[in-house]
Amino acid sequence: MPSFKITVAYDGGPFVGWQRQAAGTSVQGLIEEALADLDGCDVTVHGAGRTDAGVHAMGQVASFALERDITPDVVLRALNSKLPDEVRILSADAVPASFHARFNATSKTYRYRIWHADVLNPFERAHAWHIFGPLDTTAMAEAARLVEGRHDFAAFQTVGGTTGSTERVVTTSTLSTHRDGLVTYDITGSGFLRHMVRAIAGTLVEVGRGRQRPAWMREVIASRNRAQAGKSAPAHGLFLVRVDYGVVQSEPHVP
Amino acid sequence: MPSFKITVAYDGGPFVGWQRQAAGTSVQGLIEEALADLDGCDVTVHGAGRTDAGVHAMGQVASFALERDITPDVVLRALNSKLPDEVRILSADAVPASFHARFNATSKTYRYRIWHADVLNPFERAHAWHIFGPLDTTAMAEAARLVEGRHDFAAFQTVGGTTGSTERVVTTSTLSTHRDGLVTYDITGSGFLRHMVRAIAGTLVEVGRGRQRPAWMREVIASRNRAQAGKSAPAHGLFLVRVDYGVVQSEPHVP
Repeated sequence: MPSFKITVAYDGGPFVGWQRQAAGTSVQGLIEEALADLDGCDVTVHGAGRTDAGVHAMGQVASFALERDITPDVVLRALNSKLPDEVRILSADAVPASFHARFNATSKTYRYRIWHADVLNPFERAHAWHIFGPLDTTAMAEAARLVEGRHDFAAFQTVGGTTGSTERVVTTSTLSTHRDGLVTYDITGSGFLRHMVRAIAGTLVEVGRGRQRPAWMREVIASRNRAQAGKSAPAHGLFLVRVDYGVVQSEPHVP
Repeated sequence: MPSFKITVAYDGGPFVGWQRQAAGTSVQGLIEEALADLDGCDVTVHGAGRTDAGVHAMGQVASFALERDITPDVVLRALNSKLPDEVRILSADAVPASFHARFNATSKTYRYRIWHADVLNPFERAHAWHIFGPLDTTAMAEAARLVEGRHDFAAFQTVGGTTGSTERVVTTSTLSTHRDGLVTYDITGSGFLRHMVRAIAGTLVEVGRGRQRPAWMREVIASRNRAQAGKSAPAHGLFLVRVDYGVVQSEPHVP
């Protein structure tokens, strides 16, 4: 029963999210259906991050085991031939049966994309949040740095989120400006609460619009109160960029 | 009766092309409808390049005259508020009544985008031609340079195209490689025959795949025979990047 780790990129626009739902098409569901065709058995796929409806991924990671003794290369080709163009398997590796894409992940990196311009580039309409009017990106960058560290991030958790601890470690939180109005916010951490990145992005935009000073970010975190933070930024600007694992998980395929 | 020059970006995916057709939605038709709403009269819009169905534009230029005495800024805002997200007016300027976006254009620049990778990035699926397998981009760049100059480009004209002269001047024709598998082909010229850029892109890919040497490009041009060239590359990889005008055409708005 070989086990696999796959890296998946998807355009989240048409999907109800990563996770299988009662109704609608999910990325997990599509991959599970394609694997069931390939394996002849029901297959459960575990994703590292449960991206919400409309959220994209450049490097989601997922794990599963198959009954058939096939190579990672066959898995990669079979999945890409069965999946729609919006979902692509970028790599497939053999891993020990103990590997679990979510439980073994040591950090995840998300990127939030903002398009800051009077007129939105039509090629960015499905993959960036359009912000017009003044935006102080220097102040946003300063506020972004205050997110780094071990904090209780309850202020950025959607009501009805995790019932456990809301403490997380954010190792990097950086805002960068690029040509043509592109502004990116990159955050890497040990784990994320539900809607946390979008709530932080919305809070940064409040600072960028001059409604709050950068140091307000520290107050919002300390408040542990969702109502203190900015509104959640829209889903279509968010990308799961990569998932890291502390130890090397891939191993050669030995049939 | 003020006259205007607008710069337009559009994602060509959902349209039958720039030009109004008997059936289907065209970019020209959408802009004309929005202008008729604004002006209270029928308005004819002249585009610099008649992009085909599925072809995109980053910098199409169009011209028209209105009955109402309004400023370019009002035209810009009114059009963007009425047009769908796939079409954005990037700028609007007042021009002399004699200005015609197509007849006054001195050169146009197109870009053809190729994504050369085993697996197609899902975010590129609607805006690049996916090529997998070996691709000799050095040979393609060499062949691309042979397109420069004054030539009879009949070999790259769709059957049933222009009935006039098929001679055109290409000032630059350059292939470049970028990160992550992106290959771009940029061509600037005085004018283009129907499907010419896509036929050249298809011919370059024949060279890149090693089926022909770079010097074959010279033979194809000399043949003046469409059957000698490569197949037309798909429409969704092509972008009208910019249109240039020899003299400054904009003038201050004097109501």
